[in-house]
Amino acid sequence: MDPRIREHAETIADHSVDLQDGDNVVIDAHPDAEDLVVALHEACADRGANPLAVQERLGQRFRRAYLRNHDGEFETPSHVQALYEEMDVYIAVRGGGNATETSDVDPEVTSAYNKAQQPLLDERLSKRWCLTQYPAETNAQLGQMSTEGYENFVWDAINKDWDAVREHQQQMVEILDPADEVRIVSGDTTDVTMSVAGNPTLNDYGERNLPGGEVFTAPRPESVEGEVLFDKPLYHQGREVTDAFLRFEDGVVVEHDASKNREVLTEVLETDSGARHLGELGIGMNRDIDTFTYNMLFDEKMGDTVHMAVGRAYEDTVGEDNEQNESAVHVDMIVDMSEDSYIEVDGEIVQRDGTFRFEDGFEG
Amino acid sequence: MDPRIREHAETIADHSVDLQDGDNVVIDAHPDAEDLVVALHEACADRGANPLAVQERLGQRFRRAYLRNHDGEFETPSHVQALYEEMDVYIAVRGGGNATETSDVDPEVTSAYNKAQQPLLDERLSKRWCLTQYPAETNAQLGQMSTEGYENFVWDAINKDWDAVREHQQQMVEILDPADEVRIVSGDTTDVTMSVAGNPTLNDYGERNLPGGEVFTAPRPESVEGEVLFDKPLYHQGREVTDAFLRFEDGVVVEHDASKNREVLTEVLETDSGARHLGELGIGMNRDIDTFTYNMLFDEKMGDTVHMAVGRAYEDTVGEDNEQNESAVHVDMIVDMSEDSYIEVDGEIVQRDGTFRFEDGFEG
Repeated sequence: MDPRIREHAETIADHSVDLQDGDNVVIDAHPDAEDLVVALHEACADRGANPLAVQERLGQRFRRAYLRNHDGEFETPSHVQALYEEMDVYIAVRGGGNATETSDVDPEVTSAYNKAQQPLLDERLSKRWCLTQYPAETNAQLGQMSTEGYENFVWDAINKDWDAVREHQQQMVEILDPADEVRIVSGDTTDVTMSVAGNPTLNDYGERNLPGGEVFTAPRPESVEGEVLFDKPLYHQGREVTDAFLRFEDGVVVEHDASKNREVLTEVLETDSGARHLGELGIGMNRDIDTFTYNMLFDEKMGDTVHMAVGRAYEDTVGEDNEQNESAVHVDMIVDMSEDSYIEVDGEIVQRDGTFRFEDGFEG
Repeated sequence: MDPRIREHAETIADHSVDLQDGDNVVIDAHPDAEDLVVALHEACADRGANPLAVQERLGQRFRRAYLRNHDGEFETPSHVQALYEEMDVYIAVRGGGNATETSDVDPEVTSAYNKAQQPLLDERLSKRWCLTQYPAETNAQLGQMSTEGYENFVWDAINKDWDAVREHQQQMVEILDPADEVRIVSGDTTDVTMSVAGNPTLNDYGERNLPGGEVFTAPRPESVEGEVLFDKPLYHQGREVTDAFLRFEDGVVVEHDASKNREVLTEVLETDSGARHLGELGIGMNRDIDTFTYNMLFDEKMGDTVHMAVGRAYEDTVGEDNEQNESAVHVDMIVDMSEDSYIEVDGEIVQRDGTFRFEDGFEG
């Protein structure tokens, strides 16, 4: 086994989820990531934790088979609910399988399924959890890299000094956390403002997402105004959506478009009322992730980008007195900020063309 | 996908576990059996059942990694317990992986683990359940067959007329069910008697085991006397045990031996006090299984064999007023009855050299 796999497992266990004696652990992974799941079983044994390997979210062929044969009337499975209620730690390992496996599932069926799965998502997010990546062949191909090149890319991004990352990013947290209005401008296609007043900004340094590399908060749901062209493509339900465009009025998406697979975006927005509001604003700060690999876990952390998610807001990013946007979905979309772009916080420019105010070369 | 895989899934769903709308299902399988798990997800969707794919018993690399790194002090994982309590149907799909994967795990650690897992086994056995086989390459190799030849062997044994099997076997049930004393004699190495008085004899026609093909009951734990040489080898915890020998006094194993891996047998017998008593007597009646494939699910059903298991007795095979042998293990071992052998029930010979009293060619 590549020694970087055991290093990865140790990082998950100690840095990301703080694995303890007696912890009940669920590991959700595709079989292509088997080596990492083996290493995680070793890490669990070393620490007295109890692992169970499942393929719930990450058995793509299973989900496709189930959804394509289903009548669309779903219930929340009480045995999975019971499992998650008694669980302390949830580790989801992406990697492997066909990224477009669910591309021929009726999006309406998927939406109905996601709604029924909402209590399971709530349960998982209420525990210590980590989403990480195994460098499988199919993901390398999606990123247009060789498998060995992709392995280096993934493990370089994961097995690193997370304390240094935390310190660097904390400078942006200190700008965004006390702020009210944030404005994102890029070219003549994106100009959007939102209030983040009272909502905490979190520093993602490899805990819940491994790799980490962003700071993020939640916009106040009714405050978003303006338009955004997401110029990086996204994969949702196995389909690529390019040039997603959203226009907001009073926080609600009142217009949307895409140059490819617009109907996927439509389905997302129609999941529920929360899906038509923003649930997240994130600033990608990880310049070690310098290649776009069609994988949101990495792409959203890229330096010189911001991302916004429609749908559910993470509870920790919502202030006590503020409204938390609720939804069965959380779909991230990315704006390239490397050229002709700036981020303004309470009227002051804090990033221009990807360079932050606290970095060399910044031009306010 | 080979159409026999979907036929297999339909047989499991309708014949074996009687899958119903709203059933909570757990499917435990190795990734090599993925196609059958996909087909089972389709079958669940068709019937409104809720599937969850896990690798609990059947993730051999995971279990090895976990057990080799563990200090040996196990607890029963409450999240898996909660999952199983809320489950209606348990489907275990054998097939794939390395059959000798756990051969370098300390048997004492495995025994301690099995003890802690006992409540999970109880829970699974209290539900509708089925143990079946996917014809994976490694299993074909273990059986010394080509993969295609093994596929034919497995699916011929599984996709068949189970009503006809039930009728044929019922003739033996009617002999054994009302009986008291059973005596098994083979060559000069096996001569054992036991009482089955008051214990029901079950007809296994592809429900809990698929393939089925045996009738079986439980001996009264204290009644077993004599000695048995199990002349077919068995694999336990990834290791082959040959020529297992047991001598019983007052139902207890007082002497044991084997020509290979005797210590595996020792560990089994030392699991707990129930492991030193018989928990099952089975008569293999499936002559379509005509090849020994080092796989107990098939081997124990072979025509012209009997098998006995040390350890746990199945609840359904124990009469209301009789003692149920309890144990964390249930380990089957096989005696060849095709030559120089007979089964005697209450003093009458009912099978000689593999031919039953109710069949042509029987010589009492």
